[in-house]
Amino acid sequence: MSDHELRVSKIRNGTVIDHVTGGQALNVLAILGIDGSSGEEVSVGMNVPSDRLGRKDIVKVEGRELSQDEVDVLSLIAPDATINIVSDYEVVDKRRLDRPEFVEGVLSCPNRNCITTDDEPVDSKFEVLNDEVRCVYCETIIRDRLPDHIDT
Amino acid sequence: MSDHELRVSKIRNGTVIDHVTGGQALNVLAILGIDGSSGEEVSVGMNVPSDRLGRKDIVKVEGRELSQDEVDVLSLIAPDATINIVSDYEVVDKRRLDRPEFVEGVLSCPNRNCITTDDEPVDSKFEVLNDEVRCVYCETIIRDRLPDHIDT
Repeated sequence: MSDHELRVSKIRNGTVIDHVTGGQALNVLAILGIDGSSGEEVSVGMNVPSDRLGRKDIVKVEGRELSQDEVDVLSLIAPDATINIVSDYEVVDKRRLDRPEFVEGVLSCPNRNCITTDDEPVDSKFEVLNDEVRCVYCETIIRDRLPDHIDT
Repeated sequence: MSDHELRVSKIRNGTVIDHVTGGQALNVLAILGIDGSSGEEVSVGMNVPSDRLGRKDIVKVEGRELSQDEVDVLSLIAPDATINIVSDYEVVDKRRLDRPEFVEGVLSCPNRNCITTDDEPVDSKFEVLNDEVRCVYCETIIRDRLPDHIDT
């Protein structure tokens, strides 16, 4: 693929998150805590035509190597994502997405009375089940529209 | 500038919002009502090095021409932005940002008792003053951190 055809250009050093489910790029940024305010160089392509997925999103983060923990949380909203670590324009490592057992501090509990949604200094923590996640504090289950509960 | 140096590639038809204040791209998307779910092809570059601004953001929206009203609202968070309408890879029109007199349905009033923040079907409406905006219903003034009040 020529540079002209690339939706977002190559990065020198950092992480390329490709084959993200179409329309989920902003949720990927939210999970990674990226809103632009800290000056990170980030490129995003949303709903790019893809042979494999029909439509896909791409997120490229310059100068930051995602940890395995961060990558695993992404599996909740973008199970087909591929993660490449890039150094000097070359792919030097690939991360495999493993579905985590628990997710901490990323989702907010929809139960208003949950201790994690009050003013207490308690981070949210959910157990990841097959098709749902369950709050370990109040046992509220989130089944549908998981991205709506990402803590932005 | 070669294609290789472009952070996000050229679009065929649509709108290019360039010279956005660094870190404001996600707020631009929020103002335009773009979250990826409607399938719009969008490219975003955040905190790209810029001679003129130090750091800037770029947003390219494929297949959509922004109206003058939409453009004017952007002036609240990105006063230096330039707007180019693109057709078949060529710039065919430029929009000038005019600071609007009123902003409707974009910001949410921080006053919890305001009629626009209750369950009533009343859209928010703010009058744009010099360095602040004022709710036309409850007269609450937002002075600082305007982006925090963008309705996402």
